[in-house]
Amino acid sequence: MNVSLEQAQKAIQTAVAKSSELGLKMNIAVVDAGANLVGFARMDGAWLGSVDIAIKKAKTARFFDMNTGEIGQLSQPGGALYNIEHSNNGLITFPGGIPIKNSEGLIIGAIGVSGSTVENDHTVAQAGVATFS
Amino acid sequence: MNVSLEQAQKAIQTAVAKSSELGLKMNIAVVDAGANLVGFARMDGAWLGSVDIAIKKAKTARFFDMNTGEIGQLSQPGGALYNIEHSNNGLITFPGGIPIKNSEGLIIGAIGVSGSTVENDHTVAQAGVATFS
Amino acid sequence: MNVSLEQAQKAIQTAVAKSSELGLKMNIAVVDAGANLVGFARMDGAWLGSVDIAIKKAKTARFFDMNTGEIGQLSQPGGALYNIEHSNNGLITFPGGIPIKNSEGLIIGAIGVSGSTVENDHTVAQAGVATFS
Amino acid sequence: MNVSLEQAQKAIQTAVAKSSELGLKMNIAVVDAGANLVGFARMDGAWLGSVDIAIKKAKTARFFDMNTGEIGQLSQPGGALYNIEHSNNGLITFPGGIPIKNSEGLIIGAIGVSGSTVENDHTVAQAGVATFS
Repeated sequence: MNVSLEQAQKAIQTAVAKSSELGLKMNIAVVDAGANLVGFARMDGAWLGSVDIAIKKAKTARFFDMNTGEIGQLSQPGGALYNIEHSNNGLITFPGGIPIKNSEGLIIGAIGVSGSTVENDHTVAQAGVATFS
Repeated sequence: MNVSLEQAQKAIQTAVAKSSELGLKMNIAVVDAGANLVGFARMDGAWLGSVDIAIKKAKTARFFDMNTGEIGQLSQPGGALYNIEHSNNGLITFPGGIPIKNSEGLIIGAIGVSGSTVENDHTVAQAGVATFS
Repeated sequence: MNVSLEQAQKAIQTAVAKSSELGLKMNIAVVDAGANLVGFARMDGAWLGSVDIAIKKAKTARFFDMNTGEIGQLSQPGGALYNIEHSNNGLITFPGGIPIKNSEGLIIGAIGVSGSTVENDHTVAQAGVATFS
Repeated sequence: MNVSLEQAQKAIQTAVAKSSELGLKMNIAVVDAGANLVGFARMDGAWLGSVDIAIKKAKTARFFDMNTGEIGQLSQPGGALYNIEHSNNGLITFPGGIPIKNSEGLIIGAIGVSGSTVENDHTVAQAGVATFS
């Protein structure tokens, strides 16, 4: 099972709407179960550097089937996964990446959002994920 | 002047519709005047290897402000731009990438399409570009 | 649908046996439907440089759902896909990579073999693929 | 002296069995004395991001002939090998990589395991290494 383009676009549009509502400018990426890109959108005026970060957050969330922020708590100096970010051509391990599950709880992809504080990134990613439930 | 997200999404949706009409499954990318990704869509079942190619075609078209296929004619063995593909973390120089101009003829971005023959890729890219005129 | 580890290991063992029968030393890689590595084996004394080639052949075959050698015929100087090898962090487009289909004809992964002539590489890859039919 | 494919496969199978016994899904890689990949297996449902991590753990353990976790204690901020992970196209320096010695104590390769906590990764790697004694 994989995220479809239609599902990805609906999630992205919802995330864009949530960003606008909050007055934010975001980059939003959706990957499928194989961690391959399905859809992407950069809102007008959003940070250029967040293109890559949004994509890496989505991939990271699917790579390890957990929120990116959870990995970041383990990858700190002294932590169990210190410097895990050097793998897979670069991970992003702060909040904003969330796995996407289908109605049966199977992970079928992930979303990554970047463009504001990590709290806002996570909030907007959650809005995108909510379209799958 | 830059491609807006709204314009990019309209171009992508038109390209998706053109692909469906032709029975094709495409990857479609739009970059802005800075050659940075604005929007992307992979149709269900489209080649995974074309994610990167569609993005590279769009970037290549904006990097040099010409159709990707034109560069490919110059990058052949013995040609003036032999192996230019080694630059910029990899160019794609066969057809499917086209610059996007605004109504005044100014280049404001580019589109890249990959997933079928290069003729079909170019045809679908043209359908996306046509939304700007 | 994805290649399972059990299926991948059976395909690899069969390919190893075929190589031994032919007096060859091969590297053999199997990827799943998402082009992610499932299994790999390097026979004793096989070329070191073929580790990466076998993996890239398997990925390339899944990236475009065709035998790697078919892409290589299109990527020659003057060909429609000249220098496509610059995409996806490096493709390998000579024979030895073959998509894997399940009994219903759905592509569920790919195999890549490297270590001898491209004819031998392809023959050994075919032996691995045959375990899925 | 080098790990043979037969030895690598036996170690991988033992590690897979240990993982199953513990209810874990692991990626397991074995490299030879030259730090080149010999064998690899990803168990069904194991993390995709751990493909690269398992391989990097095995290489890291052979690069420096010590357990990966030992390097990680030296690569912390202020430590003697701070950020050594930037070398060799990316090291992984938390537990799960162990050098492999032959019966005479000579290092002939290494194993890397990734897919669970670093403690579990190390335990499963030890099960693989034990097949060489």
